[in-house]
Amino acid sequence: MMYELYYWPGIQGRGEFVRLALEEAGAKYVDIALKPEKEGGGVPAIVKFLEGSEVVRPPFAPPFLKAGRQLIGQTANILLFLGSPLGLAPRDAPGKLWTHQLQLTIADFVTEIHDTHHPIGSSLYYEEQEPEARRRAGDFIAQRLPKFLGYFEQVLERNPDSDEWMVGAVLSYPDLSMAQVIAGLRYAFPKASKKALRVHPRLQALHDKVFARPRIKAYTASARRLAFNNEDIFRHYRELDV
Amino acid sequence: MMYELYYWPGIQGRGEFVRLALEEAGAKYVDIALKPEKEGGGVPAIVKFLEGSEVVRPPFAPPFLKAGRQLIGQTANILLFLGSPLGLAPRDAPGKLWTHQLQLTIADFVTEIHDTHHPIGSSLYYEEQEPEARRRAGDFIAQRLPKFLGYFEQVLERNPDSDEWMVGAVLSYPDLSMAQVIAGLRYAFPKASKKALRVHPRLQALHDKVFARPRIKAYTASARRLAFNNEDIFRHYRELDV
Repeated sequence: MMYELYYWPGIQGRGEFVRLALEEAGAKYVDIALKPEKEGGGVPAIVKFLEGSEVVRPPFAPPFLKAGRQLIGQTANILLFLGSPLGLAPRDAPGKLWTHQLQLTIADFVTEIHDTHHPIGSSLYYEEQEPEARRRAGDFIAQRLPKFLGYFEQVLERNPDSDEWMVGAVLSYPDLSMAQVIAGLRYAFPKASKKALRVHPRLQALHDKVFARPRIKAYTASARRLAFNNEDIFRHYRELDV
Repeated sequence: MMYELYYWPGIQGRGEFVRLALEEAGAKYVDIALKPEKEGGGVPAIVKFLEGSEVVRPPFAPPFLKAGRQLIGQTANILLFLGSPLGLAPRDAPGKLWTHQLQLTIADFVTEIHDTHHPIGSSLYYEEQEPEARRRAGDFIAQRLPKFLGYFEQVLERNPDSDEWMVGAVLSYPDLSMAQVIAGLRYAFPKASKKALRVHPRLQALHDKVFARPRIKAYTASARRLAFNNEDIFRHYRELDV
């Protein structure tokens, strides 16, 4: 199966959670935004699915994945779909649901991270909502960051089948996403995340193990991996890192 | 199967999306928070799963559902699990994913609705973030409300198998959730939602059809259905309804 990933160019964004799964599995995929427009790629190819009146099951927003004739939206839903064929989810039904539950909690965490710099609205620039962002980031660092990290550390700790991974004995897709979130937090909030992660050795180890895996290492060393930047979900503003 | 629903008492909250599915299907369930503490119910029964160190797969937050020995968290994940046994999801795999994708987009919508009155943090009172709430609600009503409603109206319009429901020829769980969101919007933003819904006849009809179904009607007439109130996700503050 040749997968087609549709996501905005220039940022890792939520597309990165899908990319990491495809890369770890060595799956064949095309990142449509990177294809030239004259070959049916680029932003117009994405917009076609968002705005085209002939799309029977339209996605609300990128990322979305095309697999044969199927079009799948919502990051966590894409990973739910990919988990089994990519070998990144357990085989039993309760295990699949638990894996997805973790991914949905990661998605909630990512939304709250994003909203630290955009607490009023995505249609406004950061500079138009900086005072509000300061307050929200303060609350995030004091309340939500420790709560989410504490939760995932606990999940690692309580997994009876592994000391390294969140579900069962081997790596699954939320491990990849969690490692990405930690990398993003370190970019966005170097001071606050260092302090918060100090008491979470399992999460630190998870991050290191994921980014040391041969295919992930090859991917992050390649031109396909974009750098973190301040147009993205994880943004570094020194005044928010308190 | 006797299901156990764990959700905070006193509010509809995210638990309501699960309740509506259980009620529509005529499923047997216990709302654990409503059981007396001495019979193993009430808030302590919920906290036990959130804080108990023996829970191998802990939920991050309510609602969660106990089905036999399985414990399932995240509202959309619970509905994914319940969809088939309750007859509220299509039978084919692509249809199931599409149904879930819609539910995840409803979940995003609900988070944004909640954040209109809590743009800075859930740990603070509304009164502590009213100026920010006014700005966020303004952006929500101008940008996000029409975008989300327009999307779901389009989903109804493009469904080739029905003029009434979002997926296939019959009602599925996101129809129930969407109707609940419309009811909540009408409570929270009577002026703004009236204006916004005027151009979305299919969504208005969906709301009416869902709340006219015999089991949903019996449920909303019962004491089990709590009233909307200002401790909940959907809150009415006149200054935000602009």
